[in-house]
Amino acid sequence: MNVDGRWRRTIEVRDPGTVIVLDQAKLPHEVSWLALDDLDATAHAIREMHVRGAPLIGATAAHGVALALRGGRSLDEACTMLAASRPTAINLRWALDHMRLRIAEVPADTQVDVADAEAARICDADVACCEAIGDHGVALIRAVAERHGGRPVQVLTHCNAGWLATVDWGTALAPIYKAHEAGIAVHVWVDETRPRNQGLLTAWELAQHGVPHTVIADNAGGHLMQQGKVDLCLVGTDRTTRNGDVCNKIGTYLKALAAHDNGVPFYAAVPSSSIDWTVGEPSEIPIEERAGDELRYLAGRGDRGGTTRIAILAGTTAVGNPAFDVTPRRLMTGLVTERGITSATAAGLAALFPEHAADHAAARDPDAGRPERGKDRR
Amino acid sequence: MNVDGRWRRTIEVRDPGTVIVLDQAKLPHEVSWLALDDLDATAHAIREMHVRGAPLIGATAAHGVALALRGGRSLDEACTMLAASRPTAINLRWALDHMRLRIAEVPADTQVDVADAEAARICDADVACCEAIGDHGVALIRAVAERHGGRPVQVLTHCNAGWLATVDWGTALAPIYKAHEAGIAVHVWVDETRPRNQGLLTAWELAQHGVPHTVIADNAGGHLMQQGKVDLCLVGTDRTTRNGDVCNKIGTYLKALAAHDNGVPFYAAVPSSSIDWTVGEPSEIPIEERAGDELRYLAGRGDRGGTTRIAILAGTTAVGNPAFDVTPRRLMTGLVTERGITSATAAGLAALFPEHAADHAAARDPDAGRPERGKDRR
Repeated sequence: MNVDGRWRRTIEVRDPGTVIVLDQAKLPHEVSWLALDDLDATAHAIREMHVRGAPLIGATAAHGVALALRGGRSLDEACTMLAASRPTAINLRWALDHMRLRIAEVPADTQVDVADAEAARICDADVACCEAIGDHGVALIRAVAERHGGRPVQVLTHCNAGWLATVDWGTALAPIYKAHEAGIAVHVWVDETRPRNQGLLTAWELAQHGVPHTVIADNAGGHLMQQGKVDLCLVGTDRTTRNGDVCNKIGTYLKALAAHDNGVPFYAAVPSSSIDWTVGEPSEIPIEERAGDELRYLAGRGDRGGTTRIAILAGTTAVGNPAFDVTPRRLMTGLVTERGITSATAAGLAALFPEHAADHAAARDPDAGRPERGKDRR
Repeated sequence: MNVDGRWRRTIEVRDPGTVIVLDQAKLPHEVSWLALDDLDATAHAIREMHVRGAPLIGATAAHGVALALRGGRSLDEACTMLAASRPTAINLRWALDHMRLRIAEVPADTQVDVADAEAARICDADVACCEAIGDHGVALIRAVAERHGGRPVQVLTHCNAGWLATVDWGTALAPIYKAHEAGIAVHVWVDETRPRNQGLLTAWELAQHGVPHTVIADNAGGHLMQQGKVDLCLVGTDRTTRNGDVCNKIGTYLKALAAHDNGVPFYAAVPSSSIDWTVGEPSEIPIEERAGDELRYLAGRGDRGGTTRIAILAGTTAVGNPAFDVTPRRLMTGLVTERGITSATAAGLAALFPEHAADHAAARDPDAGRPERGKDRR
């Protein structure tokens, strides 16, 4: 999508040994690109969230494997170090597994070239996947717009599941960009998303595209839904169980509760790479506890210009910082995947992805006895 | 409660023409006291949240009336200007009505002295009220502690309903201070409470008293409840309907939804001065929309020391900033008042406050047909 009016991807190959990524730790205060030329730099960029968002983390890790091999590091070392850089993101594991399989099957002297090609292919596939999510999801927005007769469709989103979280288009924001391109009036309520304020990234990228939006504190969304000011919630996911539970940025669960309480449809944009077919229940997902300093310190523009850091809490104050929560499938209206929209159920996901689901979901659907609820529920 | 080891009130009379208040706009980064010596300074201190918290706003406004009369301003002008300084806080209106009635009935040459005396009486009454809330509410904490057999009772609170929000003791925190004084092990999850971060005030005052606590992002509480890490939620209120709906700092509703979803008891500490007997339904409460700059700017300690302000959003970014939400009575486990704990129902409140309720609640209890739910429901 656009950066200063020019269409860019969040990760681009500058030359065979160097990948450049938009440095998201500096956004939205500064636009700068970070050059990654080895395994350590790549793992560091993921761990310190210079790149972030599950799909982009996967794409970056794939390039990280290629950079590692080019630098003479082993495939095992690369995968181990990169897998440890963000434990919750399922796409990271998926991308590393994919790279490992592809590379292991080719002769040693072609591994570097194969790794480069596979990393590029993962990036292209991510773009295609996101665009497909946008093409399917736009139907949800169009349906509201048709009921409204022109009044802007009010969409609430949490965190950043935009193009910055992917290689291009985004997941949750892809339907919004598609709606905007189709001339459907849409306005986005952007959750600030403490503690890392990824909502500011969402606001930044929406502004770059001219999509109307309003930033709100994470506390405000429930009230807006009570007031009838939200038509639709669209969020991303870091990991989705095969039964449709959605692990996403901390606070997503609270918005899903409010949506449920107020009859507001609540959808997650779910690229199939984020579905963990080995996991059936929320309790099986490890939740990353991040450093308290993420809450204690904030960066922004100082009164004299330039990026300035402040502490809002003393270092001695105890801070709890779980990075994700799991929204139980019972609170999800549906899931928008690259193959279409389905219910947040084992059956719904299995119908769209039979090749993955066969081993896991069919034999043991925990909701087989649940009352019918989603539109694709069979 | 303690400031640097010395027991203070948040508002104290220094001499008949000067009231000093702890400047809460500077806390927790700086401890400083603000001298108020006329009507304008008092209205400014309330409007700009140098004093905050419904009970303290009421007490400060009462002193503001006294300062206004001493400065030759009219009672009408004082009440009009002070009432406009924070439109949602019911205690403000209550305190001003009380002052107006008392002052109007005495000869003109005694009005200044009567105003001083009444303002002092309102402050003393607030302290007694808060202490009574603490004495009643501690039973909730003690009951959990007895089930736990010594494991600390985990209490989640939102915003600051501590002694800083009152003249002393606090409302929601009063039971916690009483538990701590009684030797009951208690640990408080402190919501940061964006956009104004009043949770940092809560952390500051708990630290001054040695009460164990952990600051969390507003997004985290739902996850903690899913994980079984919260035994009890205790929040304050800015206005409570006669039927038990609780208007409190934005975001309270989201925590109440999570508590309900996870079977965690959710109580509000409700001084009777915060009950609006004229209001029956949430929709009747006007919600203050505050300036977007509250979200755009943050103050904290800079890397070189001293309080520094940063902008996290450009001034051109649209910001929505509703200051309160209303938690419907169906989500409240109960209300802790200065006369005891009751259900969040018209009947429950009327039984405790028959002198106020007679005109309003008895004849038209909207929940008269609802199934029994609260412990004091009759």
